[in-house]
Amino acid sequence: MPASERRPAWGVDIGGTKLLALRLDDGATRRVPSPRRGDEVMAAIRDAVRDRQPAAVGVGVPGLVDADGVLCFSAHLPGLAGTPVAALLREAWPDTVVWVGNDATAAAWAEATAGAGRGASDVLVVTLGTGIGGGIVRGGRLVEGARRFAGEWGHMVVDPHGPPCPCGQRGCWERFASGDGLGRLAREAAYAGRLQLAGGDPEGVRGEHVTAAAAAGDPGALAVMEELAWWLALGLANLANVFDPEVIVLGGGLVDAGEVLVAPTREVFLRLVEGGDLREGIRIVPAQLGSSAGAVGAALLAAEA
Amino acid sequence: MPASERRPAWGVDIGGTKLLALRLDDGATRRVPSPRRGDEVMAAIRDAVRDRQPAAVGVGVPGLVDADGVLCFSAHLPGLAGTPVAALLREAWPDTVVWVGNDATAAAWAEATAGAGRGASDVLVVTLGTGIGGGIVRGGRLVEGARRFAGEWGHMVVDPHGPPCPCGQRGCWERFASGDGLGRLAREAAYAGRLQLAGGDPEGVRGEHVTAAAAAGDPGALAVMEELAWWLALGLANLANVFDPEVIVLGGGLVDAGEVLVAPTREVFLRLVEGGDLREGIRIVPAQLGSSAGAVGAALLAAEA
Repeated sequence: MPASERRPAWGVDIGGTKLLALRLDDGATRRVPSPRRGDEVMAAIRDAVRDRQPAAVGVGVPGLVDADGVLCFSAHLPGLAGTPVAALLREAWPDTVVWVGNDATAAAWAEATAGAGRGASDVLVVTLGTGIGGGIVRGGRLVEGARRFAGEWGHMVVDPHGPPCPCGQRGCWERFASGDGLGRLAREAAYAGRLQLAGGDPEGVRGEHVTAAAAAGDPGALAVMEELAWWLALGLANLANVFDPEVIVLGGGLVDAGEVLVAPTREVFLRLVEGGDLREGIRIVPAQLGSSAGAVGAALLAAEA
Repeated sequence: MPASERRPAWGVDIGGTKLLALRLDDGATRRVPSPRRGDEVMAAIRDAVRDRQPAAVGVGVPGLVDADGVLCFSAHLPGLAGTPVAALLREAWPDTVVWVGNDATAAAWAEATAGAGRGASDVLVVTLGTGIGGGIVRGGRLVEGARRFAGEWGHMVVDPHGPPCPCGQRGCWERFASGDGLGRLAREAAYAGRLQLAGGDPEGVRGEHVTAAAAAGDPGALAVMEELAWWLALGLANLANVFDPEVIVLGGGLVDAGEVLVAPTREVFLRLVEGGDLREGIRIVPAQLGSSAGAVGAALLAAEA
């Protein structure tokens, strides 16, 4: 097909506040406010995707998406629950190949195939944001589960005596090893007098204060990062016992902390995983595609569908 | 090929004390003592497999088996560690198709494809014996992991404050939800005066006393079974959050307890799993193939290799 007729693939990542659209061939991006209601979804997508007839459009949404591309449940965008996203896209663009799925699944596909996991066949991508999400690639293929709800390991219970989680359980992994978890660990350390940040007000301590102070070598902050790394490694060891991946890619905002977090995580992981001496080959590496991973992955999944 | 020339497929399951060989076409079985040393392995297999030239032989062993069919590590048969089982089989039977892998993986394949999970594409088989093992079938294919160590969820930590595990961690799932775990929960209940079994000696209480008493309606024993069900459901919910299976098959000796265990497990599972109201379709069912599942699965995997 001559270049003039080539139709581009787009990826759309609907976040809690912003919708990001990305054109795969040239990386052009456009951000618009996220839709708040189901009937605003297509207008927002059309506003961001500037091509009239894209060849493929992939859309990642923050929630559980079923096999028909309906967003069944979204903690962050509750007004979108029940929206038949794939059907709306097909109606708007009848000649376009469509993929609709979970945003963390899309980001995981991008990191596994075009980012930090490139070249490996069994990749676990764990995204550490406000909560914990991610995706599994096994034998070069996405593992989505029977209802496409796989990868919800943020709600793996790792301590039944732990703090309550909005999901209704206690001690979910994301209560400890996410951005929210870091804030909680830091405030507890501040109350105990082991951390002096935010002008001495324990209530005012946030995760970003700790990562900044740890980067500057503050001993109290480094101790909190090690505690975070312990919980992170615990969940990663659980997942490695279950899946036996070749590579674990850590994504999400928390990983901007860098080796201050990743180095102790690697060390504790090999102590906690079963047969750690047989698994030294498992690499734990930071993600490479940053905040556009979700849009890139959605575009790739649509283009390959 | 005329029936007279048809060569049979055999499955071999090397257990902690007995080796079971099973001929797939007629279900004939033979048991011999398990080998204790690597140089006894082939003699024991030859003794049990009575055909001179089998078409296929699959062998399941209790431990971690690498991609070359070497038994790297076995908690129950430490004298076999390092044995190149697949190479020995190929040397003994050059014209035979060989499969060597983990025994729980083999049993899981049998249950998923020819037992309780038959017809489903995403099946989780969880085996509750002395410890907890099992296997994953995804899209009709076995998920073995990068080093073939997948499915080791018995050592998923579910309570970092829990009892120590021989693996070196604390609070592994199999400390709570296995046959050993039932014994521990029962002895704790007996010490607390909530259970009167084994002639009133708490130290003498075993898991089988509890399952028998629960089947007879003993309230203290039923309470222990409910506690066991809670821990079992907790780990199953963790795994369902990770994999989103269609069916969960429960195998192993503990499941002989029947609905006394399985019914409360189902109920607690739907409370603990994320989005339980969206997942009611997940079936939790007892295994169907009993103690020959490992040999059947090994034979099937070899015959299909």
